[in-house]
Amino acid sequence: MRKNLKLGLFGFGCVGQGLYHVLHETKGVKAEIKRICVKTPDKPRPLAEDLFTFNREEILNDPEIDVVVELIDDASAAFEILKKSLENGKAVVTANKKMLSEHLEEVYELQQRYQKPVLYEGSVCGSIPIIRNLEEYYDNDLISSVEGIFNGSTNYILTKVFEERRSYQEALSQAQALGFAESDPSLDVKAYDPKFKLTILIAHAFGVFVRPEEVINIGIDRLSAVDLKYAKDHGLTIKLVARALKSGNKIFGLVAPQFVEKTHPLASVRNEFNAVTVEGAFAEKQLFVGKGAGSYPTGSAVLSDVSALTYDYQYEYKKRKQENRLTFSNDALVEVVVSFANDSGLVTTSDFEQFKGGFQSGGQQNMQGIVRLEILRKWSQLEGVNVILSQRAVLHPVLADPVEVLSYT
Amino acid sequence: MRKNLKLGLFGFGCVGQGLYHVLHETKGVKAEIKRICVKTPDKPRPLAEDLFTFNREEILNDPEIDVVVELIDDASAAFEILKKSLENGKAVVTANKKMLSEHLEEVYELQQRYQKPVLYEGSVCGSIPIIRNLEEYYDNDLISSVEGIFNGSTNYILTKVFEERRSYQEALSQAQALGFAESDPSLDVKAYDPKFKLTILIAHAFGVFVRPEEVINIGIDRLSAVDLKYAKDHGLTIKLVARALKSGNKIFGLVAPQFVEKTHPLASVRNEFNAVTVEGAFAEKQLFVGKGAGSYPTGSAVLSDVSALTYDYQYEYKKRKQENRLTFSNDALVEVVVSFANDSGLVTTSDFEQFKGGFQSGGQQNMQGIVRLEILRKWSQLEGVNVILSQRAVLHPVLADPVEVLSYT
Repeated sequence: MRKNLKLGLFGFGCVGQGLYHVLHETKGVKAEIKRICVKTPDKPRPLAEDLFTFNREEILNDPEIDVVVELIDDASAAFEILKKSLENGKAVVTANKKMLSEHLEEVYELQQRYQKPVLYEGSVCGSIPIIRNLEEYYDNDLISSVEGIFNGSTNYILTKVFEERRSYQEALSQAQALGFAESDPSLDVKAYDPKFKLTILIAHAFGVFVRPEEVINIGIDRLSAVDLKYAKDHGLTIKLVARALKSGNKIFGLVAPQFVEKTHPLASVRNEFNAVTVEGAFAEKQLFVGKGAGSYPTGSAVLSDVSALTYDYQYEYKKRKQENRLTFSNDALVEVVVSFANDSGLVTTSDFEQFKGGFQSGGQQNMQGIVRLEILRKWSQLEGVNVILSQRAVLHPVLADPVEVLSYT
Repeated sequence: MRKNLKLGLFGFGCVGQGLYHVLHETKGVKAEIKRICVKTPDKPRPLAEDLFTFNREEILNDPEIDVVVELIDDASAAFEILKKSLENGKAVVTANKKMLSEHLEEVYELQQRYQKPVLYEGSVCGSIPIIRNLEEYYDNDLISSVEGIFNGSTNYILTKVFEERRSYQEALSQAQALGFAESDPSLDVKAYDPKFKLTILIAHAFGVFVRPEEVINIGIDRLSAVDLKYAKDHGLTIKLVARALKSGNKIFGLVAPQFVEKTHPLASVRNEFNAVTVEGAFAEKQLFVGKGAGSYPTGSAVLSDVSALTYDYQYEYKKRKQENRLTFSNDALVEVVVSFANDSGLVTTSDFEQFKGGFQSGGQQNMQGIVRLEILRKWSQLEGVNVILSQRAVLHPVLADPVEVLSYT
């Protein structure tokens, strides 16, 4: 039997307004917004003033409110709201990937303790229902990898750079003007945002909680004209790929730019679209593509969570109950192309487990070969070093069988 | 609370054996196969003999069996088994798209009458969880279209024809040798199979039951060398596209080969892969890609249905409960390229609502323009006429606003 839910909303920005409109256009969902808590008192708002409050206690302590929908930017404040809401017996819907990534194990434990659900489909790849599918549909399948393009702004920038031969700076400014990139774009272009999403998917695909700082992230902000030329000369494109895969009882994960062949399904994922590939033992490879952000796509994901709460849905984190508990590891090898200023000495051939060659062009030195992930972490902290995974690169776990390159052939 | 289920299996071919293996590799599902009913008594089988029976009553009348898993070819026998199972208080899992397409409204009514669920994720695009997503995740979104590549054999044939410049006949033989095409391939190459799947998705996307004979299907078996040359000269490929879309309170649907631009996401869906695009008012465009057939992909879809039954899942056919009841219509226009033997007179310019031009090549006459769907139906019944939808083609409902071409830009 479906319940009628009363919602308390925190934040009324892009996603909050999207949710409001989607909710009012779809008559099927038995939920209404009772109150909206906002920060800035004197902004003009499109709704009746008495719907708004500036005091969060008016939502957190309202016994009539069943569900708190948290859509604010500030990750610490969002976690406080989540905790208080569960303590006060309210379910929570959130799209805050940074907060979730930093607190996922606590969020899991708080749900057990207070027996109230937290749903967050909107936090990963907006409109793509990936968490729900990992939880429900792939609950039996033995998932071997999850990978994809988890950040729309950087995919938009890379598309413009490749298809319209714009410079990285031009494409970034255009993305910002269109609202696809934040005014401080570093969470996106330095690949923190897709890393937060990857850690959330790792929990639902493999039952492993991993701290975001354990996962190496390499951004697209150091890509050079030489890299783009190399890609074009070899009939490749570059995508910012997030991936996690299982080998033995270990989970490996990484976010980095990667050369991608034009026939690879991720190559056709353009502009602000996101994509997720799930590979299982039996269902084999599944690709999901959709808009990863924006008012309506994320608003509709949030509404799907609200709708699921009307029939008492909760994540079961089923993979945590599997027999073989897995652990996260960075003890793996990967094939890369690394570039740096001639004579800067930032990279040497001894960094490589297997050095495959190099060339100089435009004042840059390029080197190709197989390295340990810990070397990638070191390079990612050196401003003058740019790393791109090879088109053949997946993570070859050290001492394990090589994993094949994912391709739809 | 999850239940332990006892299964009775009908059929032990490719999918049945896949299910058996998947079930035995995944310890999480509380289900076991109690008995398997097969037709041919003296085939060697990989399992203990006492698991098998040749008498269907031993499953249908066994009070211990909770779920009947129907995986036989014969659609009429499959429907009889489904009816009897529900009458006898058993849930049903089936992957028989022909049976479902021909009896979907009855299957819906039987579920209401006997209050037992029928699940059939494996019937549409194998491993792609499209029915579950339409039912659960897009339960609120106002879906405007569902389209894609629903048949793996024909997609394999078209891929080989385009990428390896094989003839249609050669590619078909190869697909048959690999087991992607039946020895009687007409259900596939004449586009009946994807049409059956389309009618099932129309029920779950729009809440409309449509008889398969109402939906026009045009196969790929009349494609000629001239068509392939035309495609290549224009930088296009050809895909067998199934689609349904909403305009006003009408649903339009069609399966036909279509010219597709190389940057279109369906162009990158190769070989035996299937794809489904869902377009909604809010979630916008979502693309799902995966294997559409085969022992393990379909077996894992069937197992996901069995697993869902352990927590009493059932389809709610939610879209049928929406306020505005929709109806299926063929009163629409579409842009096509049609070809036929010179001087055969099978097609005339008066068939077109808007004639755009034509040319002669290799003894064939080609004509391009906009026609009513009923003309397509007439042409589909003339052996010498080959129809391909234009790359700009979607269905333009007559007297309604034109619908835009779906493209990921």
